[in-house]
Amino acid sequence: MAEQMDKREQALSAHRDWQGKIEVVSRAKVENMADLAVAYTPGVAEPCKEIAQDEELSYTYTRRGNLVAVITDGTAVLGLGDIGPAAGMPVMEGKCVLFKAFGGIDAFPICIDSKDPDEIVRTVQLISKSFGGINLEDISAPRCFEIERRLQEVCDIPVFHDDQHGTAIVLSAALINALKVVGKPEGSVRIVINGAGAAGISIAKLILQMKLGSVTLVDRQGIIWDGNPENNPAQAEMAKVTNLEGLRGTLADAMRGADVFVGVSRPGLVTREMVATMAEKPILFPMANPTPEIFPDEAKAGGAAVVGTGRSDYPNQVNNILAFPGIFKGALAVRAPRITDSMKEAAARGIAAAVSDEQLSADFILPTAFDKRVADIVADAVASEAVRLGINRKARD
Amino acid sequence: MAEQMDKREQALSAHRDWQGKIEVVSRAKVENMADLAVAYTPGVAEPCKEIAQDEELSYTYTRRGNLVAVITDGTAVLGLGDIGPAAGMPVMEGKCVLFKAFGGIDAFPICIDSKDPDEIVRTVQLISKSFGGINLEDISAPRCFEIERRLQEVCDIPVFHDDQHGTAIVLSAALINALKVVGKPEGSVRIVINGAGAAGISIAKLILQMKLGSVTLVDRQGIIWDGNPENNPAQAEMAKVTNLEGLRGTLADAMRGADVFVGVSRPGLVTREMVATMAEKPILFPMANPTPEIFPDEAKAGGAAVVGTGRSDYPNQVNNILAFPGIFKGALAVRAPRITDSMKEAAARGIAAAVSDEQLSADFILPTAFDKRVADIVADAVASEAVRLGINRKARD
Repeated sequence: MAEQMDKREQALSAHRDWQGKIEVVSRAKVENMADLAVAYTPGVAEPCKEIAQDEELSYTYTRRGNLVAVITDGTAVLGLGDIGPAAGMPVMEGKCVLFKAFGGIDAFPICIDSKDPDEIVRTVQLISKSFGGINLEDISAPRCFEIERRLQEVCDIPVFHDDQHGTAIVLSAALINALKVVGKPEGSVRIVINGAGAAGISIAKLILQMKLGSVTLVDRQGIIWDGNPENNPAQAEMAKVTNLEGLRGTLADAMRGADVFVGVSRPGLVTREMVATMAEKPILFPMANPTPEIFPDEAKAGGAAVVGTGRSDYPNQVNNILAFPGIFKGALAVRAPRITDSMKEAAARGIAAAVSDEQLSADFILPTAFDKRVADIVADAVASEAVRLGINRKARD
Repeated sequence: MAEQMDKREQALSAHRDWQGKIEVVSRAKVENMADLAVAYTPGVAEPCKEIAQDEELSYTYTRRGNLVAVITDGTAVLGLGDIGPAAGMPVMEGKCVLFKAFGGIDAFPICIDSKDPDEIVRTVQLISKSFGGINLEDISAPRCFEIERRLQEVCDIPVFHDDQHGTAIVLSAALINALKVVGKPEGSVRIVINGAGAAGISIAKLILQMKLGSVTLVDRQGIIWDGNPENNPAQAEMAKVTNLEGLRGTLADAMRGADVFVGVSRPGLVTREMVATMAEKPILFPMANPTPEIFPDEAKAGGAAVVGTGRSDYPNQVNNILAFPGIFKGALAVRAPRITDSMKEAAARGIAAAVSDEQLSADFILPTAFDKRVADIVADAVASEAVRLGINRKARD
């Protein structure tokens, strides 16, 4: 308790000292009238005129080519829920810090004071020409699906909801390497995902896209099955491509005989006994934060061969810091107008490949969060895939 | 011509090299997991929770307290007109550079892709909780009046259209000191303002608010008079408080016997002969850019006692760089929710007082643009006035 108080006061005190975790600084010096005449009037009219002729030149003459907006409506901030736009800002500033530290990307936080998807979409659309990409953050499900989809339709810059896709990409990378560790081929395994919100559904989609295995989704009501009138629209869509055996029942029923458990749900839902009912050499990713669905030592006691969590104090942290800086860096490098499923797959395979065969073990299936090579590896993979798809608006440097 | 080409290429080349004139950098270091646990999860939840309890704490725990949005719709960019949001960005980035260099204020540019005042107001309102102030820029008249007024009604942070008020404040400062030079008391003079757009009307309003003299507004149709069915709404409002003699006619008619000419209109409209018809020791501010309504030497040949322009290569440059950095700095320092007329007056008097009696002369009525004392003088004046009005949400440090 005293330690918790200390950590609380430490966080508040650090934030007070920072007076904001990001800062806008000048790249152009203005020390005299001659400087001013180039950076501002009258010289600045020249790049304006160029961009007016060809909007693509905004990437040449302004910061746009290295600039991402980090956007939230404050409805699903960390585990705190709907705390509103002003209160969400410390997280968004933190995300911007990570974009810069890990990807060299300028990111600027904007919190929108509306929960109406129409208004959020329109607001972001109207400011989108000031940015090279849009990172959506901490927007509650199922609104986040619609907001992301509609925004990508109206914007010709990448729109990426990190809570969905960042986690899915890193988890897929972890799964690729875990399968190697246990010697099961991709595509052969049955995967149970507990939690059918934004992250769970995005994980399921990417796993299916990547053909890593079959998927069964489970939520509070139990196994998700096709035709269940209680499914929300996103779940109903997923029910058509998951649980093809038509299972019904609880999480425990789903886990029986499964090769992989993925948890994006709540603490303590999985017991050692449930792990023991899984297929041989089971892989578990209990990622509820900060308390996982089952702790690694307990999972291993139940027979788990590989365990990864969301925590940095256990091996195999599934941390989406491994994905988003490189993904935007790669997309911006070739000016891709969107981040396709195959670009997400390329990112996941890039992260997985960043662990060498020599390093690979049950306790080392992912690069560490501070492995600074990863962003460039991911950026290369994402940019290459955009070029392969022919959607890049710029050649690679 | 060759020199013009050189200047054009110089401006483009500098902008290409900068790759954006602003940059978002981190104030928080994240070099290891312990850093991450304070700046990001889980530590960041603490300031979020504090702000959720008391939104005012967003000024303590985020960058908000030193952050201004520079917002345009790209409809009136420099003299280039309606060039759109992407093409307006180089100017907005330049403005942000000036905010930082002269006021120490973080400013971030946002170009809105709509010309509909309803949409612009709503968009800015919805993102306003991410900022400590809103600087509107290069929005065409008369839309700018409505947009600023409505935005200030719905936002509890300062909203300031610099093209209107910045110019008005610096011009008023110049006029105060010019009157001293020619020995005419404030309030005694007749002032002709040519150009009844955003800047002209704002100048007229501030001059009247400050009781510097009587005002006659002139536009392309001639002298503005009460009851003219061709007046737009803003002009109709001004017609009730200007031209109280009910003059009609041309600019030349208006200038006859006037003490002061203020031009925010077009090159070359004023002749030496027109200056000669003015009252004794006339003061002229031909501010059309880059070519003034009359050049200073020509005005002096017609009898002008004091001349100020918008140009840096003549004495007495009316440059709103003298105003906006200090105005926002002062408003942010005491967290004023708006910038009142009396705060604008305080700013103008602060700028005027920055020229000492010893310095004051016909060719030195304003501090130079690079006089770094000015922003703090203006900030002090603005903050003091906000405190006097009792609208400050924060005590002075």
